[in-house]
Amino acid sequence: MEQRKKVSEAVVKRLPRYYRHLSQLLEGNIDRISSNGLAKRMNITASQVRQDLNNFGGFGQQGYGYNVKILHSEIGNILGLGQELTCVLIGAGNLGHAVANYTNFERRGFKIKGIFDNNPAIIGTQINNITVQSVEKLVSFIKTNNIKIAMLTLPANSVRELIDTIVAAGIKGIWNFSYLDMELPSNVALVNVHLSDSLMTLAYKINEIELLKKLEESV
Amino acid sequence: MEQRKKVSEAVVKRLPRYYRHLSQLLEGNIDRISSNGLAKRMNITASQVRQDLNNFGGFGQQGYGYNVKILHSEIGNILGLGQELTCVLIGAGNLGHAVANYTNFERRGFKIKGIFDNNPAIIGTQINNITVQSVEKLVSFIKTNNIKIAMLTLPANSVRELIDTIVAAGIKGIWNFSYLDMELPSNVALVNVHLSDSLMTLAYKINEIELLKKLEESV
Repeated sequence: MEQRKKVSEAVVKRLPRYYRHLSQLLEGNIDRISSNGLAKRMNITASQVRQDLNNFGGFGQQGYGYNVKILHSEIGNILGLGQELTCVLIGAGNLGHAVANYTNFERRGFKIKGIFDNNPAIIGTQINNITVQSVEKLVSFIKTNNIKIAMLTLPANSVRELIDTIVAAGIKGIWNFSYLDMELPSNVALVNVHLSDSLMTLAYKINEIELLKKLEESV
Repeated sequence: MEQRKKVSEAVVKRLPRYYRHLSQLLEGNIDRISSNGLAKRMNITASQVRQDLNNFGGFGQQGYGYNVKILHSEIGNILGLGQELTCVLIGAGNLGHAVANYTNFERRGFKIKGIFDNNPAIIGTQINNITVQSVEKLVSFIKTNNIKIAMLTLPANSVRELIDTIVAAGIKGIWNFSYLDMELPSNVALVNVHLSDSLMTLAYKINEIELLKKLEESV
């Protein structure tokens, strides 16, 4: 367990990819895979695969490779996917609809128990068989249903008003799509998905490729 | 320009955040800001700010701080936002709707020119005043409209069939929401948004906090 403290953010971010590829292998009835095979699927090097998995004690056997079922299950445990991860979705706009209808999450153990919004026109409507409730009911809902995760798909200003309340209500993790760079107590986990930022990163990369091309042409 | 080659992925990923905060400062009519002030807004250290911006030549003046307007414009240029970034959105499901309706992108110069799907029931419908077309028309549309970016909000299997075609048609960058780890020619930029992976990373972080707490309690 002590090893867990040292795992870098970069490795943590790759773990879900391992899990995803191992899920696909399992679905294809593949029993074992070499670090080379796994690396090739993931567009990384075999040495990277071995190094990453060594962070958690290895799992591989030389000359045999990895047992797909065991490795899948172990990484699932490391990711904390063994349990039901109860969620509330706050913000029932377009993005909220997309997230609520994303069946992949439920397969991983993430279960959206309630959907909330502050727009009277949306409250009472149904998304994926869940009735949208008023945010006023959020705190009691989180407490009663032992909700672990809040998915925030609403604008930054609304998030700012809510954040202290949901943290005090006992939320353990926040999946934040809003453009609010929030500061949270150290016992609450945070993962941001900033779609505009991601798209701007793409613009940067396109620009960089063009600049390097011009630079090469001018030499 | 030579400096551009050395910029690390981590810095590139922070640039859009700088841009976003500077946009907010501009909207609030703030003329200048110190590295401390900027750092505080972004929950990073002032030394990190100075170090990041030094990658591109600095921009700051000691004792004065940064000129918000100039820095905003410079980072915008570095991000390649000065131009119109023409996009096609491929996949008009829930996620496609969410992306198409995201007004933030257009403010940054990203302009969705066409929306495509392979589902006859969706083709012909309108999203944000754009009529969804058949993917069969994709190649000619990309060429005719000089499209730079393909936003992929469709399942991995459908992406696999399309990817070579759109690259050959001249796409410069791919914003990929599908669970396909693709290999692309070096002159095509790629940014993945893997929502399930992001959510699993959150599960990991929640789990890690709980494990560390138990470990501390057991000491």
